[in-house]
Amino acid sequence: MIHYPNGKPYKPAESTKTKSARKKKDFSFSNRGKTLEDELNETNTYYLIHQIAIVHKKPVPVQIVKVEYPSRSAAVIREAYFRTPSTTDYNGVWNGYYIDFEAKETESKTSFPLKNIHEHQVAHMKDVTDQKGIAFTIVRFSSLNRYFVLPFSVLHEAWLAMLDGGRKSIPLSIFETKTIEIKTGFNPRIDYITAINKMITNKEY
Amino acid sequence: MIHYPNGKPYKPAESTKTKSARKKKDFSFSNRGKTLEDELNETNTYYLIHQIAIVHKKPVPVQIVKVEYPSRSAAVIREAYFRTPSTTDYNGVWNGYYIDFEAKETESKTSFPLKNIHEHQVAHMKDVTDQKGIAFTIVRFSSLNRYFVLPFSVLHEAWLAMLDGGRKSIPLSIFETKTIEIKTGFNPRIDYITAINKMITNKEY
Repeated sequence: MIHYPNGKPYKPAESTKTKSARKKKDFSFSNRGKTLEDELNETNTYYLIHQIAIVHKKPVPVQIVKVEYPSRSAAVIREAYFRTPSTTDYNGVWNGYYIDFEAKETESKTSFPLKNIHEHQVAHMKDVTDQKGIAFTIVRFSSLNRYFVLPFSVLHEAWLAMLDGGRKSIPLSIFETKTIEIKTGFNPRIDYITAINKMITNKEY
Repeated sequence: MIHYPNGKPYKPAESTKTKSARKKKDFSFSNRGKTLEDELNETNTYYLIHQIAIVHKKPVPVQIVKVEYPSRSAAVIREAYFRTPSTTDYNGVWNGYYIDFEAKETESKTSFPLKNIHEHQVAHMKDVTDQKGIAFTIVRFSSLNRYFVLPFSVLHEAWLAMLDGGRKSIPLSIFETKTIEIKTGFNPRIDYITAINKMITNKEY
């Protein structure tokens, strides 16, 4: 044990930073400290291993400007920039269906702000739907620890209403009545395929 | 015009580099100097604009290690590494079908070497096929200026034969009898969707 010159044992002070970090940890304990992306990656790995569905997250698009090739080691990208994705983040195939989705989190307890969705993503999901693919958004209400599959049809309706001067968010009540809530579990963590199955059965997409 | 001190006009020397670049240009004139990737990007843009199919090339996966955030300008990636893709390069949806493919070129005039395909891509295409998606490889015989849709079933058969000690390439004759040749045109440049349509009609995938 480390001792101060005055003989007292060293005990780290509770700095603001420490408190903030602890608070964060406490908060996220309810959803096991994982981001929605982590949870979906785990779920997709589970689906892949069990041959339930083949879904991958797309890599982050970057514009590569400069690459170095050091001898005897891997090429190093030394200058690159983030590009705006032209599609959603996830797509794949399940039982003959093309599935395509975006994943979004909100801290709000009452509604999902539409500013979380970009116009080009809406355009992409519309294109997918027109080609008979299944497009949706997985929305996590982080403070409530609730997850929903928001079918594109419901998002599109809210989107068009917003463009028409209507509200800029989708209230929780719409999620509770017009979308499919995902049951979370240990494995798969976020069983969205079961939710999609319900959605297809009810022709809600 | 720039003049040398001796009064003669400046004329750049034909360096080896220049000759090599010219040679490259001459060679590629037959396929308009474009890579297969360029041609597929054009084709996919055509399909997108005309709402024929929604297919995108996946971004190159990179592992980002260091990012700088200069004030008032875009974030710059200063250290990143190329990762091995876990899937094929292209996927999307066409008329309710999930389509998933890799694009490969060969200079050979007689066969397509299987070393162009990675084991994890074969595994991915098998997974896709098992989920009732349509997996294939677009192969360009660059020297012949011929393009084929190689259904996964045909690739898989050749792959398994190779693992069993058989030949390490697929001969052109197999392409001519068991795959679908793509008619190239101005727009779309490489109409692989028409080829896929034939493939589905003939249940060849």
